[in-house]
Amino acid sequence: MADKVTISVDALGGDNAPGVVLEGVEAALAQDADLEVILCGPAEVVEPFADSHERCIARATTEVIAMAEHPANAVRKKKDSSIVVGCRLVKEGVAQGFFSAGSTGACLAAGTLVMGRQKGIARPALATVLPSPVKPVVLCDVGANADCKPEYLVQFAKMASAYAEHLLGVKDPSVGLLNIGEEEEKGSAFAQETHALLKQELANFKGNAEGRDVLSGSFDVIVCDGFTGNVCLKTIEGTAKMLFGQLKGIFKSSLKNKIAALLIKGDLKKLLGTIDPDAAGGAPLLGVKGACIVGHGSSNARAIKNGVLASAAYVRSGVSEIIAQTV
Amino acid sequence: MADKVTISVDALGGDNAPGVVLEGVEAALAQDADLEVILCGPAEVVEPFADSHERCIARATTEVIAMAEHPANAVRKKKDSSIVVGCRLVKEGVAQGFFSAGSTGACLAAGTLVMGRQKGIARPALATVLPSPVKPVVLCDVGANADCKPEYLVQFAKMASAYAEHLLGVKDPSVGLLNIGEEEEKGSAFAQETHALLKQELANFKGNAEGRDVLSGSFDVIVCDGFTGNVCLKTIEGTAKMLFGQLKGIFKSSLKNKIAALLIKGDLKKLLGTIDPDAAGGAPLLGVKGACIVGHGSSNARAIKNGVLASAAYVRSGVSEIIAQTV
Repeated sequence: MADKVTISVDALGGDNAPGVVLEGVEAALAQDADLEVILCGPAEVVEPFADSHERCIARATTEVIAMAEHPANAVRKKKDSSIVVGCRLVKEGVAQGFFSAGSTGACLAAGTLVMGRQKGIARPALATVLPSPVKPVVLCDVGANADCKPEYLVQFAKMASAYAEHLLGVKDPSVGLLNIGEEEEKGSAFAQETHALLKQELANFKGNAEGRDVLSGSFDVIVCDGFTGNVCLKTIEGTAKMLFGQLKGIFKSSLKNKIAALLIKGDLKKLLGTIDPDAAGGAPLLGVKGACIVGHGSSNARAIKNGVLASAAYVRSGVSEIIAQTV
Repeated sequence: MADKVTISVDALGGDNAPGVVLEGVEAALAQDADLEVILCGPAEVVEPFADSHERCIARATTEVIAMAEHPANAVRKKKDSSIVVGCRLVKEGVAQGFFSAGSTGACLAAGTLVMGRQKGIARPALATVLPSPVKPVVLCDVGANADCKPEYLVQFAKMASAYAEHLLGVKDPSVGLLNIGEEEEKGSAFAQETHALLKQELANFKGNAEGRDVLSGSFDVIVCDGFTGNVCLKTIEGTAKMLFGQLKGIFKSSLKNKIAALLIKGDLKKLLGTIDPDAAGGAPLLGVKGACIVGHGSSNARAIKNGVLASAAYVRSGVSEIIAQTV
């Protein structure tokens, strides 16, 4: 039996909310008998659902943070929004983790401002597990901090290493710095300074990683500022989407190709499964007091389920406590 | 008949030099009857080749710049290296363009220091045509300037637009700023400031492009600092390489899949052709006096041929003069 965990979930998070969120939560509750969900959102959405589902509690909220709103301002003003309430439940100890597929910016702001930073953490950072078929790679930061100082990246490296070790089971994870050359004198002034600091502070630092190394399995953890990480992550997504779109076109373009498609469909689906961003379910905001996991805005029900389960796994791993002790 | 053009070529450039360089030059000369090549490199390599090929002149050099050398230092010291001599021939008006698949850093340094910047250009920038099957996209800068000021990117945008218009035939090319959100207040302090400046200075500026827009065909030109651009470019390469590696594995994994592979092989090759970085042959350093085109270190003979032909096309397009007039 797993530890009992309570996760607050934003019923309004994502492009297809609340429909897929409810479906996803239902599936997560069915899969994890030791999971409890506090569903935050409009009373008419969350109350009927909680009434008809075991281990689900409704927490009615009255405000909505839209995708386009300025994150920090919205979080400060809309204290009764599903995102702010969800994070406050963690702050108050009623829940141990929060999950949302809503505005990433608002989730990061609420995680940082409402849950609060862990002691000694300069900047919480968003990590994501890149779904590489070669080996999973933790990329951090992927968007919480567009502007960074070198010392932040040392903390990102330590936090992401703890995540790789305790959630992905990677022993002594190797860390690379995303940069534009292998040699240590390469890159921007920021990258050079960060390289020197990582080398000095981190036993598991293995040097620079280039864009082409990100998915090659050469590193377990790759750190960078949130601007570069976000560009890198979305470039991977865009490239994969473009290539699969082209492949799809080829598979439909002639009878002979349709036959080929039928023959390899199964194996191709397996490949798609290994690089499926929905499989991970969400990206953790490392360095806040509690679990704050952010899903893709385009999440489907399966992605929501995986995100809620990932939030529970994050809490159970104790990685927050490990980060508090080691960083 | 095309205009007569003379290109100086680094016989030592690339992982497989001089063998593939000679093969590539031979093919380029055969394809373009109005092309003349000055081949720069060790006498024992370039002289026999020039003796046996029409429209090829040997320029013996005695020094070699290795891939690992500090670019600017090497260029300053090794005045009789194939890269420095090749650029000097352009400076002296003996050749109109230079091509090398050698150390990118040394080529950029030699292009800038030896050929010299065009009047008014703060920083020459490396542009690359992303081989997207949807639509070619000019990404600039991809590595010449790791640290940038916002005003540099305005010039990058103007230079890359001239390139898109006069070499790719794109009328009134749209320009995007590589950033981490669509809204103009998104991104790092640098990105925000650059956005404001581009909006003010550039009629064809269409706003922010995210990593996932780079290959989507939403923009004709995407500008960024050389650090971000290099990470983005190499991430595309790495993602494509990983996915095609996986596909190759699938196609070989069973008899049924081998049959499927046979059926779609032709169309798959066509797709690979459209995204083949060797097809472009090289990346131009925009903003120097003359043409300076840098090829991939891993260039094969075909890539070298395409790079030499691209250098001639660059000269004939008159894009340098257009940049001088418009930026």
